[in-house]
Amino acid sequence: MCELLGMSANVPTDICFSFTGLMQRGGKTGPHRDGWGIAFYEGRGVREFKDPHPGAESQIARLVSEYPIKSHIVISHIRQANSGKVCLENTHPFTRELWGRPWVFAHNGQLNKSKLRRLKESGRPFYSPIGTTDSELAFCWILDSLRSAFPNPPRRQKDLFLVIRSLCDQLSDFGVFNMLLSDSHFMLAYCRTQLCWITRKAPFGEAKLKDEDLTVNFKEETTEKDIVTVVATQPLTNNEKWNVMAPGEMVVLKKGKVNLSVGKQSNKSKIGV
Amino acid sequence: MCELLGMSANVPTDICFSFTGLMQRGGKTGPHRDGWGIAFYEGRGVREFKDPHPGAESQIARLVSEYPIKSHIVISHIRQANSGKVCLENTHPFTRELWGRPWVFAHNGQLNKSKLRRLKESGRPFYSPIGTTDSELAFCWILDSLRSAFPNPPRRQKDLFLVIRSLCDQLSDFGVFNMLLSDSHFMLAYCRTQLCWITRKAPFGEAKLKDEDLTVNFKEETTEKDIVTVVATQPLTNNEKWNVMAPGEMVVLKKGKVNLSVGKQSNKSKIGV
Repeated sequence: MCELLGMSANVPTDICFSFTGLMQRGGKTGPHRDGWGIAFYEGRGVREFKDPHPGAESQIARLVSEYPIKSHIVISHIRQANSGKVCLENTHPFTRELWGRPWVFAHNGQLNKSKLRRLKESGRPFYSPIGTTDSELAFCWILDSLRSAFPNPPRRQKDLFLVIRSLCDQLSDFGVFNMLLSDSHFMLAYCRTQLCWITRKAPFGEAKLKDEDLTVNFKEETTEKDIVTVVATQPLTNNEKWNVMAPGEMVVLKKGKVNLSVGKQSNKSKIGV
Repeated sequence: MCELLGMSANVPTDICFSFTGLMQRGGKTGPHRDGWGIAFYEGRGVREFKDPHPGAESQIARLVSEYPIKSHIVISHIRQANSGKVCLENTHPFTRELWGRPWVFAHNGQLNKSKLRRLKESGRPFYSPIGTTDSELAFCWILDSLRSAFPNPPRRQKDLFLVIRSLCDQLSDFGVFNMLLSDSHFMLAYCRTQLCWITRKAPFGEAKLKDEDLTVNFKEETTEKDIVTVVATQPLTNNEKWNVMAPGEMVVLKKGKVNLSVGKQSNKSKIGV
């Protein structure tokens, strides 16, 4: 299994604090030794750092922890390999372009690969995996399906979210599927087994990392108008209240807020604010 | 205009020395202040670093200069913007996936954007630019054309090279077009106005950077079997003999060697070893 970390902010914000906590789980306080990666959106562009080596020992991870790269959307992942060998092309997050937007995806869980392969081959194959993980294959299938459903980006964003939610539900039938996905405008978090989030805004307080002896006083680091939401597999701090997502829940994050929960009701998908 | 730097090696090799020289031209000994980027292939995977800030002042560029990332193919670029504002999404190199391979592209020159746009719109649009440069648009058109010509990778690699060469010739009609392109197996260098290369192999000697007071004795850094070719807009060292490419010349680099020159003869393309 792996761990996910995502951030959405209304102003470009660095993720040094949370990333430092996550990296400790990459071979020090956690067993996720098989690589790590992080993607930072800056406007429409993406900046990516990844390494198939343990995050806790990586020189590049140290740079990212110490160098405040400001971003409005971040997706990060540490890997404990279960499908696909440990190498750069199997390291999350994965990136592809659709509609002139850079899509970034990271997955926690494990999917039945032969079922997934059959599903992928049944559609119009536009995207092909570079590596051999179930995760990249699932990502390629999601984008194939979106491209087929919407040759151009749909006018109503909710239509897009509903299709993505139904694709995630289908993937969940093949195993454990928790994911973070972004197109540079929004970030989606889909939870099947484990994902939680916290929104930080004024009045800001102190936060204390679980995995490292590090405390930050966000009051000193922020302005009154800043709003930041952090999503993670497990809470990263031990003195704050994190919202635990329900199995099958999908949330949309925009400008730091969880502003839309694409939930399930009986057999019909429902979008509720 | 911009500057290009590429490397092909038969064993994973670091490019710290040449990259250090190039970065000085990013705002110190040269005017290319509008960003820099570098892509390292490791197996089928790619690791990318880019920054819309001057290379000579970039903390990430310093890490790349000092941290020996070993790779068999590297493509790097420093930018002096002429088309598209200075921002992350306009920073070379650009990456897209085709046939399950990560393609990386960097361009030096300037192309007529309205002619290029008409050309792009006349084909089957698979790839869309994320930023606003002529370069990314040209790259998307190249990949659109390859995907149309070869739904699957062609069996004879020479067929692929001939098509790419003819696409480059077409782009050259729109302005200045020097480029580096790779799919993880080979690297192509196409020269319209300015590009040169050097192959280093045993017996290795000393090399002295033009742009920085730095000398390296490759004898101490290599084994007898190592073969490395470096391609650059201008020679990076001042005590070695670089091969200057002819206008309209394209070379294929594989495992450190320039092993194929896809040349022009009268009106027909010709491949000569």
